[in-house]
Parts: sequence; structure tokens; C-alpha cells
Amino acid sequence: MIKVGIVGGTGYTGVELLRLLAVHPDVQLTAITSRKEDGLPVADMFPSLRGVVDLAFSSPDKADLTQCDVVFFATPHGVAMAQAPALLAAGVKVIDLAADFRLKDQATFEKWYKIPHTAPELIEEAVYGLPELNREDIKGARLIANPGCYPTTMQLGFVPLLKAGLVDAGSLIADCKSGVSGAGRKAEIGTLFSEASDNFKAYGVHGHRHTPETSAQLARYTDQKVGLIFTPHLVPMIRGMHATLYARLTRDIDDAALQALFEDTYKDSQFVDVMPFGSHPETRSTRGSNMLRLALHRPEGGNTVVILVVQDNLVKGASGQAVQCMNIMFGLDEATGLKQVALLP
Amino acid sequence: MIKVGIVGGTGYTGVELLRLLAVHPDVQLTAITSRKEDGLPVADMFPSLRGVVDLAFSSPDKADLTQCDVVFFATPHGVAMAQAPALLAAGVKVIDLAADFRLKDQATFEKWYKIPHTAPELIEEAVYGLPELNREDIKGARLIANPGCYPTTMQLGFVPLLKAGLVDAGSLIADCKSGVSGAGRKAEIGTLFSEASDNFKAYGVHGHRHTPETSAQLARYTDQKVGLIFTPHLVPMIRGMHATLYARLTRDIDDAALQALFEDTYKDSQFVDVMPFGSHPETRSTRGSNMLRLALHRPEGGNTVVILVVQDNLVKGASGQAVQCMNIMFGLDEATGLKQVALLP
Amino acid sequence: MIKVGIVGGTGYTGVELLRLLAVHPDVQLTAITSRKEDGLPVADMFPSLRGVVDLAFSSPDKADLTQCDVVFFATPHGVAMAQAPALLAAGVKVIDLAADFRLKDQATFEKWYKIPHTAPELIEEAVYGLPELNREDIKGARLIANPGCYPTTMQLGFVPLLKAGLVDAGSLIADCKSGVSGAGRKAEIGTLFSEASDNFKAYGVHGHRHTPETSAQLARYTDQKVGLIFTPHLVPMIRGMHATLYARLTRDIDDAALQALFEDTYKDSQFVDVMPFGSHPETRSTRGSNMLRLALHRPEGGNTVVILVVQDNLVKGASGQAVQCMNIMFGLDEATGLKQVALLP
Amino acid sequence: MIKVGIVGGTGYTGVELLRLLAVHPDVQLTAITSRKEDGLPVADMFPSLRGVVDLAFSSPDKADLTQCDVVFFATPHGVAMAQAPALLAAGVKVIDLAADFRLKDQATFEKWYKIPHTAPELIEEAVYGLPELNREDIKGARLIANPGCYPTTMQLGFVPLLKAGLVDAGSLIADCKSGVSGAGRKAEIGTLFSEASDNFKAYGVHGHRHTPETSAQLARYTDQKVGLIFTPHLVPMIRGMHATLYARLTRDIDDAALQALFEDTYKDSQFVDVMPFGSHPETRSTRGSNMLRLALHRPEGGNTVVILVVQDNLVKGASGQAVQCMNIMFGLDEATGLKQVALLP
Repeated sequence: MIKVGIVGGTGYTGVELLRLLAVHPDVQLTAITSRKEDGLPVADMFPSLRGVVDLAFSSPDKADLTQCDVVFFATPHGVAMAQAPALLAAGVKVIDLAADFRLKDQATFEKWYKIPHTAPELIEEAVYGLPELNREDIKGARLIANPGCYPTTMQLGFVPLLKAGLVDAGSLIADCKSGVSGAGRKAEIGTLFSEASDNFKAYGVHGHRHTPETSAQLARYTDQKVGLIFTPHLVPMIRGMHATLYARLTRDIDDAALQALFEDTYKDSQFVDVMPFGSHPETRSTRGSNMLRLALHRPEGGNTVVILVVQDNLVKGASGQAVQCMNIMFGLDEATGLKQVALLP
Repeated sequence: MIKVGIVGGTGYTGVELLRLLAVHPDVQLTAITSRKEDGLPVADMFPSLRGVVDLAFSSPDKADLTQCDVVFFATPHGVAMAQAPALLAAGVKVIDLAADFRLKDQATFEKWYKIPHTAPELIEEAVYGLPELNREDIKGARLIANPGCYPTTMQLGFVPLLKAGLVDAGSLIADCKSGVSGAGRKAEIGTLFSEASDNFKAYGVHGHRHTPETSAQLARYTDQKVGLIFTPHLVPMIRGMHATLYARLTRDIDDAALQALFEDTYKDSQFVDVMPFGSHPETRSTRGSNMLRLALHRPEGGNTVVILVVQDNLVKGASGQAVQCMNIMFGLDEATGLKQVALLP
Repeated sequence: MIKVGIVGGTGYTGVELLRLLAVHPDVQLTAITSRKEDGLPVADMFPSLRGVVDLAFSSPDKADLTQCDVVFFATPHGVAMAQAPALLAAGVKVIDLAADFRLKDQATFEKWYKIPHTAPELIEEAVYGLPELNREDIKGARLIANPGCYPTTMQLGFVPLLKAGLVDAGSLIADCKSGVSGAGRKAEIGTLFSEASDNFKAYGVHGHRHTPETSAQLARYTDQKVGLIFTPHLVPMIRGMHATLYARLTRDIDDAALQALFEDTYKDSQFVDVMPFGSHPETRSTRGSNMLRLALHRPEGGNTVVILVVQDNLVKGASGQAVQCMNIMFGLDEATGLKQVALLP
Repeated sequence: MIKVGIVGGTGYTGVELLRLLAVHPDVQLTAITSRKEDGLPVADMFPSLRGVVDLAFSSPDKADLTQCDVVFFATPHGVAMAQAPALLAAGVKVIDLAADFRLKDQATFEKWYKIPHTAPELIEEAVYGLPELNREDIKGARLIANPGCYPTTMQLGFVPLLKAGLVDAGSLIADCKSGVSGAGRKAEIGTLFSEASDNFKAYGVHGHRHTPETSAQLARYTDQKVGLIFTPHLVPMIRGMHATLYARLTRDIDDAALQALFEDTYKDSQFVDVMPFGSHPETRSTRGSNMLRLALHRPEGGNTVVILVVQDNLVKGASGQAVQCMNIMFGLDEATGLKQVALLP
């Protein structure tokens, strides 16, 4: 059994880790920390876990996380970088669901996240935890930077085209839509029910942290200079993310070959579902599951490829992907404990 | 033109007052205060008001509310009682949308609201602002206690039966359901979209502030001792309130006579719509309007009367009712500026 | 492996059965019928099942359901009674999720469902599939009448009080609220998003089919005459059911004893969670899981007991309960394949 | 008073016309037709109109629409073209909210709408009813083709750039999102609450009827060949439309000049609100009102302009725009009866 610790279990990615790990056949939940909720049974905060999780939150000072085999950080940016060095030194693997180790360029990190990086010596070692593109590196990793939810959809949609040299990397457009849980479990007016319900809006159009993360990752797969316009929007739904990706073809290719390219790329990836050409994937077809589904379009047969990508932002876009990485790191089948069927309706 | 001031315009009842008063033909919006937002144009906080309201919030110290003819308090409990004495002394009428003057018994107020009452000398004078039951008193009032949203539905549903001596006043049950805007525009986790959406729950079942307010008002219309069980619930919708009221008949009466009793009671009340016997009113039929609709039922012809009552909690349940009171106080037709048709769908 | 057939797999209880049975360790999905969708892969209709269910719908004529060990009817009322006799004769067990065998009184069935009963000889044999109250009978059953969603919540809430002789059985009130999926997957205007969203209403207040079902079942546990007022409401959420039950105590009992009564009643029922006295269960704490949670209240210490009950109407209120019955009928642990943790948020 | 008739008043654009026209100071509602609902009081179908609209639906045969000054067609495609010739001959003006007269090219119409055009002689005369771009032509029109909801947002966003010759007309991208009411009040499974709620998806990506309409209109404002990729999406909200428009600059221009271009274009248009550069308009800021709001962005200062446009699809996107056209046709102030303030929250 893998002994698992969770730092910061009071947010949505934390409770989602608990939902998945509580019934994972190879995991023993060992500790979950929260400074503020020390002593509170986890199930008192999240009644969905009554009878499933018996742990109580414990203060970070009291919890001995070095007894764990792996520790997940479901925390704000900056926490993992402070605690990872000691854990790694104690032989504990670390999976960070925040951004601390996602950007290889320290200056870019500090510019966008507005905090100094306190563990720069670990940046190089950290492995970007997107299994479909990076599986081999994850196997041997000690420290995982779990991708952001938006970047997961953008990369899995654009990379096959970039690798194949089919599109203009300089004029990529990603029009993305996220459920409100992506904003986290924080007391804020903007995400109140009465503000976010029956409403739709874009945000951060001038610039968003996920743009440099995605651009840097995409650049690994093309020699061209990457130019990416990323527009996030807020959808009145709890879970779910939909990316509508636009790329301009620079070479002739027919629809069947495009479809084959994607099917081939993901033929060994059980969590990527390449739907039939021309499908319209729905976010709810992934609700609560670790699946990402995508479909290709070519409006009026022109030279623009539209890729539609959906996932559950809290599962494949966060906690499910983190568990997937853990499975790979510990030599388990990638899908262990991740076979939940999406909840529809 | 009536010069109107609003204290505390950053909450939902505040913005709703603005929506109604901005197009009221006899009103001149004169001042709106907020300590925190001093100087901010109102329309910057509420873009729905762009081009409609030109005022900026001003700090309470700067705003000279004594130049107003009437001041609305859309504030937390305790603010109106602090400021009303000086305003009244200056000849300004006051309409409080909070609870400061709703309870005639000071001790009951202090027990439920957990603050000392600082203007007890005004309690007696304050008029309970439910026009359908209290129209004459409102005409001459200087100080209005605007009813709570739940109490409005309960009183307008139960009072005809109590006045007619038809039901057991000691076993009234009110199972009420409110949209989330009833909780106000406050940064709290419990009313986040991701918490309140796709969910239903009761709250405060052990006891709620609106029980003593309602019981005390109902007692004015019966000689029996009032016993009221009030169960509030939270509905995943922005606006709307639905009360399902249960009363036990103690006298024989047929359905037509019951219906006639209600139609007669409200024949001069243009904001109470007594629907045909056996109807199922929907909250959305009142969305954005000052209408309250109700319908009577008698399940399987038994001795229990079920009254279904709907309203928009922010209009008839709060700001619309306050404007209705203002109209009466200033000798206008009760419906002036309140003829918005409900938004459906 | 239990060979399972499903008749009528295109509705919400059908797809929910598929979600649960597809990953049930002791089940082999063998056939799923739909006259209209003959030949269509199930996953084409429900993309959440892509990669999980490989079956296609087959026309009822073609499917040989007699090869199954058990057949679930997720059909409109009237279908199971037509097909059950032949299946039972062939040694196949039958679980009907509709109402065909819920009422022991044929005349009452025909009055409320407005169709003649075509298999009256089976009514007596049919076992009412509410395991928490009826477990022993289910073990040996060939034919299960799976309870309605509302009746499940009402019975599990009221029965402990009735059995203990604590309340007036003649004045029970059940104010119930259901998510929209309870209305099924039918093309109707009333349940369109634009009609049902941001809205709340009661329906069927004059009389609803679930009243006679519930009353008849409740009568098994008391010598008093049962009088039940049942008021269903429609909540703008997909899944979830909340019952607010009111009963009048006829004997003195303190809160701790009340709580102990319920805890004791359900101590062996892993799908009933008796929450601490005074809790407010939320429907989302059961979303996608087979748990039913309840909590007791006694407003202002009076003689009315309020019981709050929540469940997922498609799981414990329908398909999950049916699978639970199947597990019992086939000698499995009741919870086999039903350990999904609720999806929160 | 303008005598108004409505053909097809049972859909969402029909009830929205009623909401607006019932309180329009210069309008007398004269007839509303529905073959299916002949004799039914309008307020029985739409209880929001109780006490506001006294008319009953009448069968098309009985209603003498020639007594009207203007008739609105809130009908499926094909109805207006059948009835318009006779009405026009009788001197009645016609405003069609469907597509019958939106496309000047008959073959394109017939290709996309799959019905023959039965009044081709009127196509040339029909005026495209987008007042902000076409006000002068509307003044003298007898027959108005009211624009589609999507095309309104796309044209008002793109046209200033095209007219100024600033962008590449051949690579326009419009990623648009609509509330569910855009699909109409039709009994269909796809728009049920349980299907459309808590979900997000694209549709019609391969080609949508609003693409040729928009392209043809845009072509009026540029010499370049128009190339438009239009991707519609369905948002789980009742009302509201958000267009995210992407255009590539072909000339140097700074942000202030871009902003000035839009402010200048719409300086006389009281229903277009050009928000400050870099704003994020929300659909709810237009809920129930005839306002369209837009804002400009230039991500990372690059050569892509992003225009965010919001409106209420049933008001400015349909019925409000139709009333705006009527006002212009009858010499009234364009905003008469259209000053409803948006409902927020």
C-alpha cells in the first residue's frame, strides 16, 4: 500500500483527491493537513465523505509527512516549493497540483505569480505531469508539476498538429470555457451563485498565467515560434472545461488523415478519447471521470482546423491527473482507481 | 420629485432599489452611501446600471442625507436604528429594509439579533410596511419597518384564514424555499456557485429570526395562540421565493367559499394575484416584478388547506415592497414605477 | 457472473443502471432493448459510456432475454406486467423500476395509473424492494417492485416513528422536493431548461400517485389510520431529492431517545446515514451515490418532529436501489458495486 | 396608437414581444394568433402576463390582421413569406423575426433553410433590421427582416474594423455562446434541463445558417473577400449571448484609436454600450434589456484584436430589436418602451 499524505485538503482539488484516493485499491490515506481546521474530521466539512474517510485534518506541525511515500500539494502557489525540499530529502515523492514547478524559466514564474521562487534548484528536476505526452519521464520522477487544467486541454489538442508540422504555430487561438469550481473554494463575491449563475463572461483576456505555461510546453514540439491567444471564460456550471482550438493548416491534408493522426497519437492513452470526426463532445460526458474527449472539425472544408476538447477540470484537469501520475510513478497500471464512469445526467 | 437617499447600496436590495428608483417617474436619486466604495461610480460596480444611474457612492460622512425626503436603509441590522433618530428629527422619512423596527418587543429583538436596540423609543411608532394588511397606517408613517421576505409570504397566505377563524392557529406549518440572493451579496463559502448550485438543503430548522416576526404579526389577526413551524430551504436559483403553507381547518367550508375569502381579501391589492383554485404558481412568474401570486389547494378534499405563495424575494420580498410603501407615504398610486412585467423565460 | 438484461435503456434510470452495472464486479451486461433504437450502440446515445459499454440496443423481438439471470425494467408503467410472466416462467428474475407491482390493491393501481393490470396474479408475489425495511423478503424474491423515489424518502423517515407508536399517523405531512431528472428523459416543454431553470414550483398538490403507494406501505407499520399530505415540488437541479417530513408526537420523548431510535433502526443499513441530531443534510452529499442521509429536528423543542431526508433520486431513489435488491437476491453483499463516493462539488 | 398583431405568440420571442409591447406607451395589442391554442387566454400559458395582457390566442383564420398597422411574425421560417404579400397589399407593415427575408440571395436561402422561397419578389425590398447599421433604410421600410441573434453580435463587433480597413476580412473568427432560450420553446430532448444544465458544448461547427447571413452582411462593409469561422456553443443559462470575436490587424493602430473608432461609430446608438478598453462585459448586465455591450482587447499587445460582445438574445437579439425597428418605422424615438433596466442579480 502506498502511504499518501495531502497538504491542503480543504479546497476542491483536495476533496477531489480524497474522493479518488479513498477507494483506490493500493492507497492508504495517512495524513491530511490544514492549519485552520486542525482536529476537524474531514467528513464534517465534506459530508459526501461520511463513512468513507475517517481521517481528521491535522495541523502541518503535527503531521509527520515524512512517513508517507508520496505527498500531494493541493495548496495555493508557493506552499509546495517551501516544503518539497525536506520531503524529497526524506525520500518522499511530491506531486504539486499548483504552479510552483510548472515553468522551467524562473523569471517567467516570478513575473506571473508575483512571488520569489524559494526552491529554484528543483525546477530543472521537476517533471511536467502530463502522462499522454510525458509518460516515460514521469516513471522515474521524484517531483511532479501537475499541469494546469486549461493547459492540459490546449496541449492535448494542439500537440499532434505541431509535431506533424501541419499548422502555423504562430497563430494559434484557444477559446476556453471553465466551470466555476476552477476558481476554487474561496469566499469571494465574483463566484457567488447569485453572481455566476445565469451569466457568461470572459476574464483575463489581456493575459493569463496559463498562457506562458502552455506556450512553453507547446514549443517543445515545434521549431516554429509559438504564438498563442488564450481567452478563458466562466461557465455557469460546477465542473467541466471546454476548449475550442483554432489552428491554420499550412499543408494540405484530408480529414481522414487528420483523424488518423490524432487516433494514432493517443492509441495507447486510455484517458484520451478521440471521437469520430465532426463530433461535438459535451463536458458532462466526462463529469467525475478522468476522461478527456476531443473531436476534429474543418468548417466548410477550409484551412482552419477546429479541435473541440472536454474534460472535468477537477479530475483530468487536476486531481485525477495527479493520481494518474502517482500510478505511473509507483509502477501501477495508469488507470488504477480511476475507472469512475462519468455521471450523466 | 421625491428626493431619495439610499444607505448601503452595495448589496442586492440596494442595487434592486436602484433598478426600480432610477426609472420611477416621481423620484430623484440624490445620494447613495457606502463607506468602503466612496467615490466609485455605482455603474462601475453594477454594469447593468451603465447609462441609467450616474451617481457615485459617497462616504456616509460626506453625504448630507437630511436634504432627502426619504432615506432607504439597505443595510445590515443595526444601522438604521443608529441613524434614524437624526433623520426623523430633520423631517426625513425612513424606510428600513432590515429588521431594526420589525419586532415590537425589544427583548425578542435583542434575543434573536444579538445586538442591543439603540433607538427603543422609535419601536412603537414604526409601522410594519406590509401594505396589503396595513395600508392605512403606512399612509401617515414617518418610519417604516419593511417586512422580511419570508414573513411577507407567510402573512399574506395565512391571515385571511386566521381572520375568518377557520383554522387552528396553533399548528401552522410553513415550508418555505428561497433563491440564493436572499443570503445577500457577501463573500461566503456557503453561497458560492460550486456549493449552492445543483443542490438543495434546509437551514435554520431549529429556529430562524423570521419565526418571531411572523408569529407576532399573525397574532394580530386571531385570538388563538399562534404556533408556527417555519422551515426555510435554499433553492439553486437567483431570485424567487415559494412558501408552501399548511393549515388545519376547524370549521366546515367548501372550496368556492375558501377561494372567495381570498379573492375578497385582496380585491383592492393590485400586487396580490389570487390564482384559480388548484393552480401551481411558479416563482418565475414574478421574476423582477412586484407581484405576489398565491393559490389554494385542499389535498383529497381533506381538512388541510395548502396555500402556495410565490414572489420575487428581492422585489415584493424587499425593495419593491419598500418602494410600494414610499408611494403610499407620499400619496402616489401604490403601483407607480412598479409596473415591470415579470421576465419569463 | 450474473447475466443481466435491461428493458428500456434509453431513459435516465436506464443509463444509470448501465453506469452502475458496467463496473459491477459480478455482472455481465447481456442485452439492452429499445424498439426505437435497434442497432444503435448505447455509447452513441450516452457518450459518458464510450469505452465502458460496448453493447448496442436491440429490438425487443430480437433480444433473447430468457438467457439472462435477471431483467431490469426501466420502462414506462405497463411494460413489466406484460413481459414478466414469460420471463418468470423461464426462470428469470425480474426487477421492475416502474409502478406495475408496487400497489397490492389492483383497483388502486388502476385508478391512479389509468391502465388495466394485465398480470394481477403476480401482484401478491411481488416483493416491495426497499431493503432497509424488507431485506428478508427480497432474499427469496423472484419479482421485485422497486419503490418510487419519493416513497423511499418518506418511508425511511416516518417508519421508525410509526413503529415506535410515537406520532399521530393521521396527520403526517411530507413536503418533498425533486431534481428535474425525476421527470424522465422525455421531450416535454415543462422540463425544458428555459422553463425549469431559475424557477421553483409545486405540482400535483391535489393528489399524486406516490401518495397511495406510501400510505399503503406506512400502514404496515402502525395500527392507526394513516393520513398523509404529500406535496411534491420541482427543484432546478438535475439530481437529488429532499424530503421535509413533519409528524406530531403523541408521547413524550427526549431528543437523545429519538436519535437513538433512528440510529438503532438503521444500524445494519449501510446506505442509510443517520446524521447528528439537528444536522441539515444536503442533496449533493449523495450525488451519484446510493446513500440516503437523514437528520432529526425538533423546532423550539415543541411536539413536532421534523425529519430531513436526502438521496440521489436516480440512485437510491431508483437504479441504485434496484441493484441493491439484485445483490440481495443473488446472495452478494448488499453494497457490491455500489461504493461510488458522492460527487462534491 | 399603433395597432399591433403578433403571429405565433407561443414561443419565446412571442412572449417577449408581449412583455415589451404590453407596456409600450404607443401600442395597442390587437391580435395574437396560434392555430393550436385558439381561444386560450395568453396569460393562461404565460402566467407572468396575468393582469397585463387580456388577449386570448385566436386561430389565424379568425384573426383579421389587416386591421393592424404592423404585424410581427414570431414564427418558424416559412410562415412570414406566405402571409406577408397579402398584409403588405392591405397596407400593413411586416416585421419578420425569422429568416425568410434575411438573405438577399434566394438560392443561399433555399440551400440553408431547405424550403422553397414563396415570395421571392419581396426579397429585394425587405430591409435588414439592424438599426445601428441600417437606420435610414428602416425608416421607410414596409417589410423588415429582423437579424438573427448571433449575426447581431458579430456585425456590431466586426463592422467598425472592416469599414476602417484595419483587419484581414478573410480570417475572422467568431466563437459565440448562447443561452438555451435561443433554441426556442420546443419539446426536444437536447434542451431539457437534465441535458443542458451543468453542461457545455459546441454545435453546428461544420456549418450554421447564421454564417451566410453574417458573411453577406459583412461583405457590404469591405472590398475584401470575407472569410468567417463561426462556432456556436450552448451555455447553461436561460438568456444571454456572448460573442468572442478575433480579427487580425493589417495596419498599425494604437489602443486609444481603436477605442475611439468604436465609440465614434456608436455615438448615436443608445443601445450599444462601448465599455472601457479591456473590460469584460457580462451577459447578465443586459438581462431583460435591449442593450448590447462590447469591449475591446489586444492580448499582449499583439496584432490580434479581441472584441467581446454581450446581449440578451431574446431582446436585442430578437424581440427588442424588432420593437426598435417598429419605433423607427413609425417615427417614434427608437427607445420608446425599451427602457427596461437589466435584471441583476
